[in-house]
Amino acid sequence: MTSLTSRGWALAKRPVGEPTLADFDLQTSDVPAPGAGEIQVRNSWMSVDPYMRGRMYDRESYVPPFQIGELLQGGTVGHVTASNHPDYAEGDLVLSMAGWREAWTAAPEAVMANKLPAGTGLPDSAFLGIAGMPGLTAYAGILRVAELKEGDTVFVSGAAGAVGSAVVQIAKIKGCTVIGSAGGAEKVAYVKSLGADACVDYREAATYDELLAALKQAAPKGIDVYFDNVGGDHFQAAIELARPFARMAICGMISQYNDTEPSPGPNNVIQIVGKQLQIKGFIVSTHVDMQPQFMADMAEWIGSGKLKFEETVMEGVAEAPHAFIGLFSGRNKGKMLVKLS
Amino acid sequence: MTSLTSRGWALAKRPVGEPTLADFDLQTSDVPAPGAGEIQVRNSWMSVDPYMRGRMYDRESYVPPFQIGELLQGGTVGHVTASNHPDYAEGDLVLSMAGWREAWTAAPEAVMANKLPAGTGLPDSAFLGIAGMPGLTAYAGILRVAELKEGDTVFVSGAAGAVGSAVVQIAKIKGCTVIGSAGGAEKVAYVKSLGADACVDYREAATYDELLAALKQAAPKGIDVYFDNVGGDHFQAAIELARPFARMAICGMISQYNDTEPSPGPNNVIQIVGKQLQIKGFIVSTHVDMQPQFMADMAEWIGSGKLKFEETVMEGVAEAPHAFIGLFSGRNKGKMLVKLS
Repeated sequence: MTSLTSRGWALAKRPVGEPTLADFDLQTSDVPAPGAGEIQVRNSWMSVDPYMRGRMYDRESYVPPFQIGELLQGGTVGHVTASNHPDYAEGDLVLSMAGWREAWTAAPEAVMANKLPAGTGLPDSAFLGIAGMPGLTAYAGILRVAELKEGDTVFVSGAAGAVGSAVVQIAKIKGCTVIGSAGGAEKVAYVKSLGADACVDYREAATYDELLAALKQAAPKGIDVYFDNVGGDHFQAAIELARPFARMAICGMISQYNDTEPSPGPNNVIQIVGKQLQIKGFIVSTHVDMQPQFMADMAEWIGSGKLKFEETVMEGVAEAPHAFIGLFSGRNKGKMLVKLS
Repeated sequence: MTSLTSRGWALAKRPVGEPTLADFDLQTSDVPAPGAGEIQVRNSWMSVDPYMRGRMYDRESYVPPFQIGELLQGGTVGHVTASNHPDYAEGDLVLSMAGWREAWTAAPEAVMANKLPAGTGLPDSAFLGIAGMPGLTAYAGILRVAELKEGDTVFVSGAAGAVGSAVVQIAKIKGCTVIGSAGGAEKVAYVKSLGADACVDYREAATYDELLAALKQAAPKGIDVYFDNVGGDHFQAAIELARPFARMAICGMISQYNDTEPSPGPNNVIQIVGKQLQIKGFIVSTHVDMQPQFMADMAEWIGSGKLKFEETVMEGVAEAPHAFIGLFSGRNKGKMLVKLS
């Protein structure tokens, strides 16, 4: 067992509005040989996810805020380089929350580490995307929270993202009509390639009225289900398009994560009453009980080619803040990842 | 069998903003002796309800719009004065949608008429309030839509109204902490007399910040359930105060019914995600299957004195528009009614 050196990112200061490189601080630290009950891991992939923006505010939420000067956390996969824990051996593939760094030594439970199964046929990176947290988010959100039924017309905002692209495909597998939204012609083509019946380009339909008109054209009879990744105009348009008893799974509102002032909510919430809408926010951790069924379905769908996934990869830990910041300008198709080793 | 003369109100024109007397037109018409399958009824009480404002707009909704020049419709109770229908006899008490008029002749099914049970011990007017549509609205909304649980902290806006005052009491019967809101000291005292643990005066706490501060003082640990009759600032404050997994039954948004332009929605809808809120709009007609249990519970609660109800009564059909307009300035404590005979 030897010690390693690891570069990793700390929060230099809390971002105001859109995060910038100055908000991050690259630190180098020593990763010691593991003590009793600890493992030493070299990360191979790390995840950047929109929800991390929320942890950069100093406020109470469902996860504690990041602390200034401390290493950031997030999903990562890596291989055990040394183990002083009976359940882990050198070479094991480990999923943990010790991301934003190249390597680490800790007790597995301190970083929510879990050994990943071997022989799945999936690339390691998939456990940060389609077979990991974003995949389960899509699965639980569309099937349980939105109570998807065969024949529903489904509108998915942010349909080219890690979660959205999975939602599109799951809804198609379940026999639904699916309308996506995405930014730019390339992403729109990608969403259609996943099977979406239509996809609105929200860069082209840039005003609310244009977005609504484009969606009305795509879903002239309205929608039964809305899966929200974007918020703002998309949420308001979804309420406008909703049929009676439509269900909405509110997964995220990336258009608002960098707001420095509260932005006005949808101006048509009164329709919640007359249309008897059901709007539910959710966090994936509430639905981890679905993990076994999720993994079984994913294995089948990916194996049979029914479900595809794409990754946008940046190379090296130095790129992590770029990758994160890129989420808010939509630089990713599918899952945004940083390859670490 | 003889014909009667009936005065009744037609819509003169569609109100713009707050309705005014000029929007209504008093018409006198002949009420003929009943033909085959018809009954002739003299109404004794008629209801005015906030939802009727929605029917004055010319738009598609869950009930068709009122037509200009035609008599308005709404809940009413009355006694059969002549019957040419095998199921109805002179003197029977009938609930129907043929309100806004003194008398009518029609086939029962054409006006959604139903014979009311005799010997309930309830005054006839109660079937337009606590034992009728508003009562069932409160019952279904708080118990089923909001999924009320013992020990919940519940916020009810418009707590002095027909629906709100019933919600307050049902939630107290079910072992909850109840915070109401109402306009003015007299109504606040009324809501407290119904058992509410606290009641905020929204005339005193007139800005959003004042309303929120008053509610925070009343519910320092936040709320588990919100029952919305008011919308606007109340809805936004409820989202702000919501605990994780709070449930909201959106029954009405009276503060917005007279809006001539869409008003901005709650500026904190992003909290729907992190708090995993559940927001459900509903219409009472969706929950008529609860009617038998509702009537059984109401009979017990009213009979045992656990549930009280108040009525604000205006006299004579000529007063009906005043009564209706008064709903929007909060002239009513409990159910607003017009006594017709």
